[in-house]
Amino acid sequence: MLLRIDHVGIACRSLDAAIERYVNVFGLAVVSREVNEEQGVKEAMLATSEGTSYVQLLEPLGAQTPVGRFLERRGEGMHHVGYAVADVTAALAEIGGQAVRLIDSRPRHGSMGASIAFLHPGDLGGVLTELVQPRADS
Amino acid sequence: MLLRIDHVGIACRSLDAAIERYVNVFGLAVVSREVNEEQGVKEAMLATSEGTSYVQLLEPLGAQTPVGRFLERRGEGMHHVGYAVADVTAALAEIGGQAVRLIDSRPRHGSMGASIAFLHPGDLGGVLTELVQPRADS
Repeated sequence: MLLRIDHVGIACRSLDAAIERYVNVFGLAVVSREVNEEQGVKEAMLATSEGTSYVQLLEPLGAQTPVGRFLERRGEGMHHVGYAVADVTAALAEIGGQAVRLIDSRPRHGSMGASIAFLHPGDLGGVLTELVQPRADS
Repeated sequence: MLLRIDHVGIACRSLDAAIERYVNVFGLAVVSREVNEEQGVKEAMLATSEGTSYVQLLEPLGAQTPVGRFLERRGEGMHHVGYAVADVTAALAEIGGQAVRLIDSRPRHGSMGASIAFLHPGDLGGVLTELVQPRADS
């Protein structure tokens, strides 16, 4: 079901400073910057050189957002992991039959036009887990 | 320099229980189980279906190990991210010129015969970062 690791989501206080660090230290390329009001973040996707997996940097739009609360509680660091799947709706149906709570029972909009859904970290050993169906033409 | 995300390292209290969860929920395949005394862990690598990235599950060999202290401080969850590189020695030389402390100034032995080195999370936004040069024939 999981094709590959699509990205790691990293919570940061300053998106610009985090981008600068990853570009300078590792030579990553920024392929997308967007604001996702629904998720309460501004974010950037930086591609690794094979182009199939990404570092996602996330700055909260405010303190009372999921990433804002994460920063307050844990500080900067890894926030979630996203796995690529062929069909996020089918994956949710399959996982829904297991003892894993779905944060999203239906797909919603993710970065770069993907369809995504989150699974509950409480049922996955503390790991906030995202399923990512990349946009068809990507 | 970073080819792709090679793995996410996940700290767990029971390796067997964590393996069972990832196999049952996601259908991942265990491709390696080993004990790394130097790092104080017993671990398993579970392959995603494209075979290029892995979930690494880590159970500490004791409380006074890096992963044991992580569990005590943070609980179960994501411990580090590993990126594949073509040449870990060359990557360390390049990164050593940046303002990033190297936990390992020379490569050491990682999972499945890889050469690995860790970079300091304090200089990378709280993210413990591993460079992984996979074994040549893998």
